[in-house]
Amino acid sequence: MQRHFEKELESLKTSLIKMGSLAEDAIGLSIQALLKQDAELARKVIDSDGRINSLEIEIDNAIVDLLALQQPVAIDLRLILAAAKINNDLERIGDHAVNIAESALAVCESRPEEPLLDLPRMAELTRKMLRNALDSFIHNDPRMGATVLTADDQVDDLNKEMTAEVIGLMRKDPSLIEGGLQVLRVSRNLERVADLATNIAEEVVFIAEARVVKHHAFEESLSKTGKQDGAEKH
Amino acid sequence: MQRHFEKELESLKTSLIKMGSLAEDAIGLSIQALLKQDAELARKVIDSDGRINSLEIEIDNAIVDLLALQQPVAIDLRLILAAAKINNDLERIGDHAVNIAESALAVCESRPEEPLLDLPRMAELTRKMLRNALDSFIHNDPRMGATVLTADDQVDDLNKEMTAEVIGLMRKDPSLIEGGLQVLRVSRNLERVADLATNIAEEVVFIAEARVVKHHAFEESLSKTGKQDGAEKH
Repeated sequence: MQRHFEKELESLKTSLIKMGSLAEDAIGLSIQALLKQDAELARKVIDSDGRINSLEIEIDNAIVDLLALQQPVAIDLRLILAAAKINNDLERIGDHAVNIAESALAVCESRPEEPLLDLPRMAELTRKMLRNALDSFIHNDPRMGATVLTADDQVDDLNKEMTAEVIGLMRKDPSLIEGGLQVLRVSRNLERVADLATNIAEEVVFIAEARVVKHHAFEESLSKTGKQDGAEKH
Repeated sequence: MQRHFEKELESLKTSLIKMGSLAEDAIGLSIQALLKQDAELARKVIDSDGRINSLEIEIDNAIVDLLALQQPVAIDLRLILAAAKINNDLERIGDHAVNIAESALAVCESRPEEPLLDLPRMAELTRKMLRNALDSFIHNDPRMGATVLTADDQVDDLNKEMTAEVIGLMRKDPSLIEGGLQVLRVSRNLERVADLATNIAEEVVFIAEARVVKHHAFEESLSKTGKQDGAEKH
């Protein structure tokens, strides 16, 4: 029974790593579609979201089975509950990739001359956060997740700076309004992905240290590193 | 043992109903703050989010204890797992209330003459959705949740219409850009709350019918009622 349980747990982890890889690819490709104005690639990202959604349901069902049949306790129970949350976080990252791909399509249609401002840098930072969060899960290393939390502040700052910059551009030239709204939409979606990567890193800490590390408890524990709430994260 | 378990389960449900009530109040008050340009009320909503966040952690801990100590099966297990998701959905609704309250503060500062367009109607629809979703959970009545799904389409449509309208207004008068962005932000946040109310209604179906009703499976099962994907929900 115990060996069978270990095997099921390992299989759950493998599915989540697969899910993480799909979500990471979706974000990477949606950004590529935007930067290269590649409509075909954008459509590919939108179409492939169904795979992420199906995998989420598969993993959810596996979690229900594990809980019902194996009745795990302690560290295994925490791992499984954290897995349920990470699964949901990854599915939401897939949704954000679709949103970014939709913006990429809108940008392809209008073929604008507008600058993408700091979007490439923000995308690079966000992708690195997601990679580190997934690595910290794969290697069960909460310290690796700490870098995710620092980077989240930078992404929040970039999002705020870009919002101000885009408003300035729109004011000067109203023909930039629609393109500007797409830039803001992508920026906001990246900021959300960064939040979700932070959630994943937090769940890895929860697994390892058996405590809920979030909200104010989390902020307090990080006050030494100067971590602050993001504008849209409370 | 069994009677103790029933009591714990009932206590979990009571906590979730309390959480639902806090989230619903937060949304209602944030909208009131926006419509009445009441900065004090907006600050009250922002301050009270800590209560929702603490309650989320309390409920999460109660869920871990229930799973670890009682090792429930079948319908109880499904109820507890759905409770975990609803808990998370409600916490996110609290976050959206904070975002709306922040927009209310920005609107109070600028004292604009801009119209709020269809925001009052959209807010009313969204609040009713949330109320019905919570009622369907409280009374364990999935049919009550069906009204939530129809209303979600209307909210999605209103969000799209308002986006187009706001862009038109911004183009005509660039002094409306900043106010318009706040209207779009509130509209987007309400659309998200409507999505989360839909999630809750789906979870109630999951509890009652023991099946995962979402994504395409969900869309297919509802194709007769004409339910479509929202722009930002995949």
